[in-house]
Amino acid sequence: MIALKRPTLLLNKQTCLRNIKNMKAKADKHGLIFRPHFKTHQSVEIGEWFRDEGIDRIAVSSVSMAQYFAKSGWKDITVAFPLNPAETEEINDLARQIDLSIVIEHMESLKVLARKLSHPLGVFIKLDAGYHRTGIPVEEHEQILLLVHEIGHARHLTFKGFLVHNGHTYHQKGPEEILEIHRQSHEKLRALKKALYRHDINSFISIGDTPAVSLADTFQDIDEIRPGNFVFYDVMQHNLGVCKPSDIAVAVACPVVAKHPDRMEIVVYGGAVHLSKDYVQDEEGKTIFGLVTGLTEKGWGDPWPDTFVKSLSQEHGIIKTHPGIMRRVKTGDFLAILPVHSCLTTNLMRELTTLEGNRITTMQT
Amino acid sequence: MIALKRPTLLLNKQTCLRNIKNMKAKADKHGLIFRPHFKTHQSVEIGEWFRDEGIDRIAVSSVSMAQYFAKSGWKDITVAFPLNPAETEEINDLARQIDLSIVIEHMESLKVLARKLSHPLGVFIKLDAGYHRTGIPVEEHEQILLLVHEIGHARHLTFKGFLVHNGHTYHQKGPEEILEIHRQSHEKLRALKKALYRHDINSFISIGDTPAVSLADTFQDIDEIRPGNFVFYDVMQHNLGVCKPSDIAVAVACPVVAKHPDRMEIVVYGGAVHLSKDYVQDEEGKTIFGLVTGLTEKGWGDPWPDTFVKSLSQEHGIIKTHPGIMRRVKTGDFLAILPVHSCLTTNLMRELTTLEGNRITTMQT
Repeated sequence: MIALKRPTLLLNKQTCLRNIKNMKAKADKHGLIFRPHFKTHQSVEIGEWFRDEGIDRIAVSSVSMAQYFAKSGWKDITVAFPLNPAETEEINDLARQIDLSIVIEHMESLKVLARKLSHPLGVFIKLDAGYHRTGIPVEEHEQILLLVHEIGHARHLTFKGFLVHNGHTYHQKGPEEILEIHRQSHEKLRALKKALYRHDINSFISIGDTPAVSLADTFQDIDEIRPGNFVFYDVMQHNLGVCKPSDIAVAVACPVVAKHPDRMEIVVYGGAVHLSKDYVQDEEGKTIFGLVTGLTEKGWGDPWPDTFVKSLSQEHGIIKTHPGIMRRVKTGDFLAILPVHSCLTTNLMRELTTLEGNRITTMQT
Repeated sequence: MIALKRPTLLLNKQTCLRNIKNMKAKADKHGLIFRPHFKTHQSVEIGEWFRDEGIDRIAVSSVSMAQYFAKSGWKDITVAFPLNPAETEEINDLARQIDLSIVIEHMESLKVLARKLSHPLGVFIKLDAGYHRTGIPVEEHEQILLLVHEIGHARHLTFKGFLVHNGHTYHQKGPEEILEIHRQSHEKLRALKKALYRHDINSFISIGDTPAVSLADTFQDIDEIRPGNFVFYDVMQHNLGVCKPSDIAVAVACPVVAKHPDRMEIVVYGGAVHLSKDYVQDEEGKTIFGLVTGLTEKGWGDPWPDTFVKSLSQEHGIIKTHPGIMRRVKTGDFLAILPVHSCLTTNLMRELTTLEGNRITTMQT
């Protein structure tokens, strides 16, 4: 293992490459466009690993992120986030350089944009298939048709299709419930496709979430997938039954700074500013801020049983464990903490270090 | 109000200066050393506002943060975090330049350090007065005396006293419970002081938490306070009854990107990567990720009633509100979100903008 001084976000490049290849193979098998969401890694260098697999279309979650990736040669970017009218100038400037698409759910903010736009811009309509975060309810065919019609009349705008993100798959207990959401969402989208077909309207459909896209094996009526988290996976995905622990490509290496055998707790330097305060609850209702294992020559192994991060403050992590681990771990040792939500952890850590010791920067660096 | 494009961490400098002055006045009134914890703002420029009040001793939460502030002329720094043996070299180097103190709770890791140390270093012993995160239980007089004795024999080390952080004040319902913890902690520390006095041992005591330090009006047997959060305060402190909304010096200005009147929800560009996923629960058990109000020419006012951030994803914030606000707010407007935990929000946002438009960088920038 490379020399470590303080909390360090380790990346197992082999695992990450395998995750990319697997998802690409799945997209190919089902004849889907693969437009990976780059908000998880936010890194030009990791982006190149996708490019090596022949991927040339990406999704991002902000205009700033689109600017960052456009600079390193990405020419087809969807900003998969509701339009922020205050960034009209930046959008117009990007639309001049690349094939840019944005997402809207009503005309209000689009009209502001359309007035100032001088370059061609793609527009997706955001649909809500049950998550209830953003989007037009997918059942509201009339409202959707009206909006498509309006986009058709706006200068410089091209209607590109529909974007769905079933984020409520994250709130389910396991694969069965996740696949049921996927199935229900499909049914609604199929009905919409039929209605659009009658009106001779483009019915391209892009779906988003890593849980359903990882688990599902039917994608009829879907044209594009844009999962993001799968590139690293994390404890949340494992907890949902979406991935195995060995699919998790990142871990925060944290030094042990105190031990409290009386309450079976180990304190590490590694807190909310490293891992984020996202958590999962396991079957017994325990709140878990990360799973824990030892570092090895080759990286890290499966998480230790009955051992987890039970709480986080700004820089402290408190690990609950059992006597076997308590005896084995010494102050000064580094432990590997598998993050609950790898997107937020990567955003906080801002730099990844491969097991070979190569440092990978992100747009936050 | 200054021009805004995307989520921006606004700082009301006048409120911040008032918070600093008030805490300094309180320390002076009670004859306490005021050693503010700089982990909340992490900013050289805001540090200068403390220096203007005559403050020349600070606490930080990592060796990296000590390096950052030492570079801008701070000469007396306590790293109020359990010693990380992997940073021995950095500690030794800093100890050469400034009056540096570190914190330990057992000899194990200190011995590693002492062997490599070539410059004088202050050592505080971490005591646990009931929080049970780190430290020796304050009742364990013998264990404490032994450790003091051992420090006395280590080369280059000077025993400086005891550090207590009653972080469990954050888990209370309100001022009464917080003050009760403060009182109980005092009682235990007084007993320790008496025991130390009999052995002619330095019994300097430094306490930490913003809730108790803000509320309490008795500090007998305490020598130093090192609160951090008070510089900005936040919704968590307000929820605990520690500060008024008008004492909160920071707010994240976020653009409205969607409205859903059917479920009384407003969607802003401003999510977990801006605010952090820390939350509070109000009296009715509602989970709150931030309070919300409008921006004014002079900054922002008190939070709107029955309006709060109910959930966060990576870049989205979902605000629950009522018909009055729903009618008033338009897509494209910027709203002020008062953060639940200003330390984590500042760490994520990495830059503050005063109401006058001055940009203040932090060590994360």
